Amino acid sequence: MSEVHAARRSWLRARCSPRNGAAVVAGPANVRYLVGPAPSGAALLVRRSGGDVLLGHWDPAESPGGPLGELGGPRVVALDGEADPVEAAVALAVEEGAGEIAVEEHQLTVARHRAVLAGVPGARLTDLGRAVEGRRVVKDEDEIAALRAAAEITDRALGELLESILVGRTERHLALELERRLVDHGADGPAFPTSVATGSHSGLAGHRPTDRRVEEGDFLTVRLGARFRGYRCRIGRTFVIGTSPADWQIELYDVVFAAQRAAREALAPDVEYRAVDRAAREVLTAAGHGKALGPVTGHGVGLEMGEDPRMGPAAMGRLSACVPVTVEPGVHLPGRGGVRIDDTLVVRPPADGGPELLTITTKELLAL
Amino acid sequence: MSEVHAARRSWLRARCSPRNGAAVVAGPANVRYLVGPAPSGAALLVRRSGGDVLLGHWDPAESPGGPLGELGGPRVVALDGEADPVEAAVALAVEEGAGEIAVEEHQLTVARHRAVLAGVPGARLTDLGRAVEGRRVVKDEDEIAALRAAAEITDRALGELLESILVGRTERHLALELERRLVDHGADGPAFPTSVATGSHSGLAGHRPTDRRVEEGDFLTVRLGARFRGYRCRIGRTFVIGTSPADWQIELYDVVFAAQRAAREALAPDVEYRAVDRAAREVLTAAGHGKALGPVTGHGVGLEMGEDPRMGPAAMGRLSACVPVTVEPGVHLPGRGGVRIDDTLVVRPPADGGPELLTITTKELLAL
Repeated sequence: MSEVHAARRSWLRARCSPRNGAAVVAGPANVRYLVGPAPSGAALLVRRSGGDVLLGHWDPAESPGGPLGELGGPRVVALDGEADPVEAAVALAVEEGAGEIAVEEHQLTVARHRAVLAGVPGARLTDLGRAVEGRRVVKDEDEIAALRAAAEITDRALGELLESILVGRTERHLALELERRLVDHGADGPAFPTSVATGSHSGLAGHRPTDRRVEEGDFLTVRLGARFRGYRCRIGRTFVIGTSPADWQIELYDVVFAAQRAAREALAPDVEYRAVDRAAREVLTAAGHGKALGPVTGHGVGLEMGEDPRMGPAAMGRLSACVPVTVEPGVHLPGRGGVRIDDTLVVRPPADGGPELLTITTKELLAL
Repeated sequence: MSEVHAARRSWLRARCSPRNGAAVVAGPANVRYLVGPAPSGAALLVRRSGGDVLLGHWDPAESPGGPLGELGGPRVVALDGEADPVEAAVALAVEEGAGEIAVEEHQLTVARHRAVLAGVPGARLTDLGRAVEGRRVVKDEDEIAALRAAAEITDRALGELLESILVGRTERHLALELERRLVDHGADGPAFPTSVATGSHSGLAGHRPTDRRVEEGDFLTVRLGARFRGYRCRIGRTFVIGTSPADWQIELYDVVFAAQRAAREALAPDVEYRAVDRAAREVLTAAGHGKALGPVTGHGVGLEMGEDPRMGPAAMGRLSACVPVTVEPGVHLPGRGGVRIDDTLVVRPPADGGPELLTITTKELLAL
């Protein structure tokens, strides 16, 4: 991977001001994208002329002589005490004669930015903006392979759960078991906190598992995802517990499924983000559930769970090939429960067979 | 709790500029401290004159008519789409005639701060600084009771693990089992990612569990903590696996134990933060392990895992009664392993019996 990281840093180098400019990257996922795994809070200095430097706090016990740099990787500088890696990076750049230094103003707090300016007299800071996030939207095939592996782990963990007895178990225990299974199958960990919602909780977007037990007749919504080599995916499925779903459950499931399918089918290069959102929203609105939908129908995934693009009614921009996104509409009826169906897909041109579905667990309404 | 929250908001109100000033709080733990549980990302508006308002994104499905305010609590405003709660709070304050509005510049990024100014023409923003964090350092007895409960859960989870067979199990599985036990005993969840480190990993501060299995002769370091009603504690213990520890293991354990005890015994009202750090650091330095210690010997705990104060060599300030802190020195010998011993204690005056130890699991070197 180190050649890939070096190529990404070259791209950033070319964006630095030609007058000896530099960039200091501090967003954790951005740093990871440009150098691979790094200590939490590390900052990366990239310069128009001069080598790249990764500054951070390594566990002193882990690397008593300082961390070892990787061949072809950035030089590494281990900081003492509680020094701010961004301030140290800016100081180093100024010391070695850098001109304008672009920092990520959306990653630095006002107080920290001020402290950097106070700590490094003479530093000329500009805004790098979301340049690295923008570069991260379209994935290369190695990144997609990591997402594919994450999805495979996730499907497997979910599949095993479906073979076990669910009635009588609590949301909390089911969530913990799913996370254990993700790790068993090779995940670094969960991509986000696993959500298990039963009965009146089902269909809620951000539900945190409780001690409520799964009962006959419940809708059961499960949302989970594996993190694999840093890459995160999401699957969400809703099941019905017991021998046969009620009519309202079948109707609601069909509506959400139709909305989810419409958004999936809308995914293609050059399609507007908001057109994908609209596809799902129209189906739900026609069925009288338009207000139940959250602000977005789906979003990008990669090193972060919710990254660019965000597919909402006001989103500007168009999809490209090789952009992995979630499609995750849901409806919740207060007091009764609801349905969510989430997939992770990669946008592909129609000539290549259209969107590539990574999370392949069936979306039929299963009665468990 | 709602009276407690109201009293805290009154304290903040009194800090607002007398000329119709306002404050907008955005730090998640700060918001929780002032209103109780709130949606993630919510902002709280407190005004010198005028009621308090909590603005955020509630799940539309969860509260279709908008969320219900609590009696005596702030008015609640549910925002649409992806509106920024801080910007909405500032806009509301300006609309209703507020003068200077203090925001938390250490919680807002430069980009977001700029967007608020651009979105609300005429807003006069000042810096609230770490006022709420400062108020949170000394805990009331309800907060300490929540921490005590968290510690009790943590001790219980750890105690159960010690009764089971450990040899042959992986770090990952032990960590997951500990987290399950925390939840079983009533925790909201883990206070931080559970760390299990065996053999050459033992004694590392930030070790993430791997597939390495526990073997005879290993040091095994376990760090975990429960989150209970939002409050987080930490315990860390190091054990030796097998019938009898090696001489180097006994020696290293004794040194870290002596350093940890020295720092614990230094805890008292009016003692300088750095004096606590020095107490541990001197013991380790005398034994030739001074460089192995991280930047701090311990830190405050409460609604966040690492909050003020931070007890490092350069820390300014003095302890007060009713401040809960960790004491967590450690030494790691590369290639061999090491020892960490972490406790959570509450600073109490000597007349009250000195520091109150919350995490009571034995610190004898157990051979398991």
